[in-house]
Amino acid sequence: MEKKTTIYDIAKKLEITAATVSRALNNNPKISEATRKLVNDTAKEMNYEQNTLALALKSGKSYNVGVIVPRIDSNFFASVIRGIEEELYPKGYHVIICQTHDQEDLEIANINSLLNAQVDGILMSISNAKLETTEHFHKLLNKRVPLIFFDRKKDIPGVSSVTIDDFKGGYDATQHLINQGCKRIAHLSNNREILIFKNRYLGYRQAIIDNGLEFDESLVIETMSKVLEGRKTTKILLAMDNPPDAIFSSSDFTALGAIEEIKEQGLKIPNDISVIGFSNEPFTRFMELSITSVDQSPVEMGRITAQVFLEEVGNGKKIKTQKQVVLTPELIVRKSSLKSEVLSN
Amino acid sequence: MEKKTTIYDIAKKLEITAATVSRALNNNPKISEATRKLVNDTAKEMNYEQNTLALALKSGKSYNVGVIVPRIDSNFFASVIRGIEEELYPKGYHVIICQTHDQEDLEIANINSLLNAQVDGILMSISNAKLETTEHFHKLLNKRVPLIFFDRKKDIPGVSSVTIDDFKGGYDATQHLINQGCKRIAHLSNNREILIFKNRYLGYRQAIIDNGLEFDESLVIETMSKVLEGRKTTKILLAMDNPPDAIFSSSDFTALGAIEEIKEQGLKIPNDISVIGFSNEPFTRFMELSITSVDQSPVEMGRITAQVFLEEVGNGKKIKTQKQVVLTPELIVRKSSLKSEVLSN
Repeated sequence: MEKKTTIYDIAKKLEITAATVSRALNNNPKISEATRKLVNDTAKEMNYEQNTLALALKSGKSYNVGVIVPRIDSNFFASVIRGIEEELYPKGYHVIICQTHDQEDLEIANINSLLNAQVDGILMSISNAKLETTEHFHKLLNKRVPLIFFDRKKDIPGVSSVTIDDFKGGYDATQHLINQGCKRIAHLSNNREILIFKNRYLGYRQAIIDNGLEFDESLVIETMSKVLEGRKTTKILLAMDNPPDAIFSSSDFTALGAIEEIKEQGLKIPNDISVIGFSNEPFTRFMELSITSVDQSPVEMGRITAQVFLEEVGNGKKIKTQKQVVLTPELIVRKSSLKSEVLSN
Repeated sequence: MEKKTTIYDIAKKLEITAATVSRALNNNPKISEATRKLVNDTAKEMNYEQNTLALALKSGKSYNVGVIVPRIDSNFFASVIRGIEEELYPKGYHVIICQTHDQEDLEIANINSLLNAQVDGILMSISNAKLETTEHFHKLLNKRVPLIFFDRKKDIPGVSSVTIDDFKGGYDATQHLINQGCKRIAHLSNNREILIFKNRYLGYRQAIIDNGLEFDESLVIETMSKVLEGRKTTKILLAMDNPPDAIFSSSDFTALGAIEEIKEQGLKIPNDISVIGFSNEPFTRFMELSITSVDQSPVEMGRITAQVFLEEVGNGKKIKTQKQVVLTPELIVRKSSLKSEVLSN
C-alpha cells in the first residue's frame, strides 16, 4: 500500500493548521462553510480517508462481525449465514465469513484472523475436530469479544447458543421409521463429542427403547458428513449377517452416499431399506427419489443468533447473560422412507 | 472490549522501563534470560498481546486476504474459495469471505469492510447487479491493494483476471445439442453486461450460425440464476407457437428449474426437449435424470487466482503486470441431453 494522505498533508497544501483541517472534516461549527468545502474537496482530491480503523479502535467498534462455519458449501450453513446477514445488515453491521474445514488449527487461526480484523463479535459453529483445547474460546471471552455458538456448540460458561432440539430430531426420525414397520434401524452418527451429534444419537436410541425394540450398538457407526463416507459405512452395514432395514443418518450427505450404495447393491428404497437424512439440504427435495430429512430452520437460527449477539452488544460490558435458545426441528417425510403399502393402510 | 494491557502496564507492575519490556518481548539479546522470562510470564498473566494490527500497519501486511463472491451456497464459488485457501494457507495467509447476494450496495460495503479489516488483497467475482459505478474498484487500485477478478469480471485496466473460455463453453454445449439432432435451441441467459454471460451467449449463437441453423433471438431469455426463475422462463418458452426442442442454460440452477417445468408439463427429457446447464454443480450428477453441464474447474481457478495474487504481492509496488488467465471448460455429457437413438447410431 502506498503512503496514506494525512490531515498534515492537507494542512500543508492549504497552508492552514492540522487542527483546522480536523475540525473541518468533523463538521465543527466553528469552521466556515467555505473552509469546510475547501478542505473536503482537497481531501477528496488527495484520496484522503478518515482512518476508519483508528475510529473503530477509539469507539471500540468496527461494525464487522465474524462468522465461522465448518464449511460454506452446505445449504444449512449458507442459510444460517443468510439469516445472520438479514438481521445484521439493517443494523449497520457487516458479516465476514471464515471456514474451518473441520480442522482445529484452522479454527484457531480463523479466530485470530478475525480478532486482527477487529470484529465486534464472533458467531460460530465449531469444527468437528476432536478439540484438544478450548483456550481459543477463552481468549475471546477474556477480551470481552462476544462469542455465540449456533448449531455445533460446546458448553462453555458465559457463552450463549442457538441450536435445535437434536434429541427430538433423532427421536422423531426413528419413530417415523418404526411406524413404517422398520425393526432394525442403523444410525450413521458423527463425532459425538459435538453435542448435536450426541443428541441425535440419544434421541434415536430412546425411540428404539421406548418402542420395545432391541437396541444394537453394532448398528451405530461414527462417520464423517461426506457422500463417500456414507457409501463406505453403508457397505459395512449391508455386509452384516443381519443387515439393517433402515438407516437414520445424522447428515444428508452421508444419507445420499447410503442411497447410492444401496441402489448399487440392487436393493429397493424404501421397501428393502428406508433412509432418512438430517438438515433438509435442497438436493434431498430435488432428487427423483426424494430423501426424508429433518429441517432445522437454518435462516431462523441465523436470525436468532444475530439477535442474541445484538442483545449482548447492547447490554454493555457489565451485564452478561447467557442464553440458550433451542428451536424445534421438523421431520419432512419424502419417498426414501415412505412405504406405499403403509401409506394405503 | 475491555482496555488492553500495554507495555506500560507491564513496566509499571515490574518497576522497569517500558523500553526494557519492549526489548524483552522482542527478544533483544541485550536483555538477560531472567528478565525476558519475567516479562513474558507477566505479559501472559496480564493478557498482554503484541498489537498484531499495529505490526500489520507498520509492515503493511495483515496476511488476511478478502474473497468476495455473489453467493457462498453454490458449489462453484465454494470450490473456487477452496482452491484459493489451498494455495494461500501454506503461504501464511488467511482467507475471509464476503457475499454480495448480487447487490451493488453490498458489493461496495464488502469492499469497505475488507479494507477496514486491512486485507492485503481482494480476490473477487463481481455481482450480477447492473453496476452503475466502478468507483469502488478504482478506490482499491488507488490504495494499491491488489484486486484480482475470477469468473465474473469487468475489463478494468490494471486488474488481472482468471476466467474460463465461456465462449467455447457455450459453443461446445450448443454444438453437442445440434449433434443430437436439436434444431430449435433456446438459451436461458443472464445479465450480459457480465462478460461470462455475454460470452456464453455469443458461443451459443456462433454454433447455431456455423451449423447453418436459423438464429431466433426470441429464443434467448435473460433470467436470474435461480431454480424458480428457470421454471418461469421455461413456461414462457413452452407456451410459444413454435417451442424449442432444446434449452442451453447459462446456469445449472435455471436448468434444474427448466427440467422441473418440462416434467410437470408431461414432456420427456431428452427426447422431447434436451437440457444443458453450466457449472457442473454436484446436484447435476446426483439427479436420477443427471444433467449435462459445463465444468469450469473451479478449484483450479481458485488456485490460479491465488497464484496471480501472490505474484502481484511479490512484485512490489513498482512493477504492475496485468494477467488474463483463461482456462478451458469441459462439457460433461449426461442423461438430460443424450438421446439413446442417437447413442446407438
